[in-house]
Order: sequence, then C-alpha cells, then structure tokens
Amino acid sequence: MSHKGNLAVVSGFSGAGKGTLMKALLEQYPMQYALSISATTRKPREGEEHGREYFFLTKEQFEQLIAEDALIEYAGYVGNYYGTPKRYVQEQLEAGRDVILEIEIQGALKVKKKFPDTLLLFVVPPSAAELEKRLRGRGTETDEVIRSRLARAAEEAAYMEQYDYLLINDDLSVCVEQMHALIQAQRARVSGNSSFIADMRGQLEHLRQR
Amino acid sequence: MSHKGNLAVVSGFSGAGKGTLMKALLEQYPMQYALSISATTRKPREGEEHGREYFFLTKEQFEQLIAEDALIEYAGYVGNYYGTPKRYVQEQLEAGRDVILEIEIQGALKVKKKFPDTLLLFVVPPSAAELEKRLRGRGTETDEVIRSRLARAAEEAAYMEQYDYLLINDDLSVCVEQMHALIQAQRARVSGNSSFIADMRGQLEHLRQR
Repeated sequence: MSHKGNLAVVSGFSGAGKGTLMKALLEQYPMQYALSISATTRKPREGEEHGREYFFLTKEQFEQLIAEDALIEYAGYVGNYYGTPKRYVQEQLEAGRDVILEIEIQGALKVKKKFPDTLLLFVVPPSAAELEKRLRGRGTETDEVIRSRLARAAEEAAYMEQYDYLLINDDLSVCVEQMHALIQAQRARVSGNSSFIADMRGQLEHLRQR
Repeated sequence: MSHKGNLAVVSGFSGAGKGTLMKALLEQYPMQYALSISATTRKPREGEEHGREYFFLTKEQFEQLIAEDALIEYAGYVGNYYGTPKRYVQEQLEAGRDVILEIEIQGALKVKKKFPDTLLLFVVPPSAAELEKRLRGRGTETDEVIRSRLARAAEEAAYMEQYDYLLINDDLSVCVEQMHALIQAQRARVSGNSSFIADMRGQLEHLRQR
C-alpha cells in the first residue's frame, strides 16, 4: 500500500469513550483525518444509517468483497461478518489524510501484521471503577449487559501489550491532543522516510566525490 | 534501570544543528529535560569548561569508571575515550526528568541495545546542500575540514535506518516542538505502562467476580 497518510487503529473497552474521542478528533482536525467505515452483515439498529455507522450489506455482498480481496481485514462475530473495505482507506491515505480504523482487537492485530507501520492505540478509562461508572451512567443498559461488558473488558485486557500506545481517556481534550500528537509523530518515523534518506545519501555521495 | 523519565539519544551529522536544538529545547522546557554530560580523556578546547561541555578526565580516572561499570556506554575515538556516566542519568530519570544524550552513532546503538526503550532521534538538515552551507557558514573551518565532515556524514548516513525518528532541522522552533512531542509521546508507550496495565487487569477481574 503506497501512501502519504498514516494508518492508525483505535481499540479499547466498550465504555472507554472511543466514539466521543473520534468525534472530537475529527471535529478538531477535519481536513487531517478520515474515519474508516466498516462493513457488516448485522441489521442496522435504530438511528443507525448506511454509510455513517456501517455499510450494511447482505451476506452475499459481503462474501463478494471477500472474494475480491477488497477488505483489509474481516472477522465473524456472533453470526455476522464485520470488515474494513480497502478502497476508501487507500483513497484517503493517498490524498495524504491519516485514516483511523476503530476496530476490535483481532482485526487490529490482523491489520498490524499486514501493514507493520500501522499505529495501534488502545483507549482505556483511568480506572476500572470509572469504566463501570461510565457504563452505568448511560442508564440504558441492564445489569447483565454491564456485567458482560466488564467481563469482555477483562478478556480484552490480555491484549493490551500488543498495542503501541495506551491512551488514558480521563480529560477528553487532553486525550484528543495526545492522540493527534501520536499519529502526527508517525510522519517522522525513519521507516516512513526511506526516499528522503535515499536522497540524502545520494546528495552526500555526490558532494563527497566532487 | 527503574525510572520515571525517558531516555532519548540524539545523533546526527556535524552541522545539522544538534547543539542549537538542544539549547533551544532546554530553554523552552527547563524543568522537563536534563542533558547528560559526557566524560572524555581529550584535552579541553578553548572556552570549554569541566562539567559543562564535558567532564575532562585523565586516562586513569576514565579507566576507573570503566572498572566500576559506572558508564552507560563508552568508546575510543582518535586515541581518546568518550563515555556517558551512569549516575547522573539515573538520578535525573528517577526525578522524573527526561534525559537526552547527544552521542555519536556507535554509542547510541549500544545504549539502545542495553535499554531497548531508549528513543533514538537522528537530526538532519533539510538537504545535503544545506548541510554544506551551514558548515561553510561557520566561517571557521578549512575546506579540508568541511570535506572530511561531509565524508563522515556520508558514512553516518548508512546508520539512519537504525534510528526511530528523523528530525529534519529546517525551522528551529518547529524542530524543537517536534522533538518535545516525540519524547513526551514515550510516556504513553504500552511498554512503559506495565504497572498501570497490571492494575487495570486486577481491578477488572475483581469487578467481574463480584
């Protein structure tokens, strides 16, 4: 994948505030970032729109994308497919925008394996107690749902070491700036500047032999 | 080495502006950074002070430090020893300051091998022509010295890929801010937050079993 933008993956516990964080980042830097939209075969929930929360596809349409190698990653979860369409991501990266994928851990690790320069960010609340408070604060979830979210968080916590950076979402605006700084720092990575390095070497050789 | 600050190593071509960059960074963030001072057995040049540019030691004193394992790294260069005393670095890191070592490439790679979390920064001018211009601009160097500096830069360029980040020193204040952002970003590295991660796991397990 040749590109000018950087690819970042954001994962984290349900309730850590990933959605709010993404929204704030895109509001703050609308020209800089593009948020990738996933495709799924699950049915839209109330208020969800095709092309906004997800691309809602039939099983046949999704399997067509798989057959065409048109997904960066995909996985099955509770009987449905979820995946990241390649084309939009590639277009945005080529336009110099940094693309953010908000996906779960298994997908994140697949993307990193395929594109090692991907930045993996893991969003956490400042504490588990705060996570529980935020989950309860929504006021829409049953006790059982909250328990299952906490159990899932405990399982997901096993993968935190496989990420590059931890984003502790305590103060939202601090967290947005930190995320922005981490993604922008990627532009200075030696691994992303091989043509600059090659040019510099060529120029130095030229000056030395003059 | 247990610590609260981060260790960063800055290398780069002679004439890239490392010295000016360090000075500007320390002026901008005097409480945040500590610049490690190297020890050497070479004689002080005019205007150099013991404990400011270097700790000027005798060969016997330097070999005493080697024997006591009191150096993070050391090397011989043109008949003299150069090295980084461990104690000052450790004290500053423990006080929560980020320590910067301005050392040459071989030393930098030794430090990284010993302390893998070290951030390796390579400072370059925007182009080789600009490097030559800066070297000539000093007005103090003979043509021969400039040629040998350029030849050395061409050799050093072979090691750029072993660094983490490239700092292109075009506009000084932009470069200072970029360097600051890169070093501060280290605090969010997953590898530096193992106790936070362990705590989070413990708390989640506790909530889940309640």
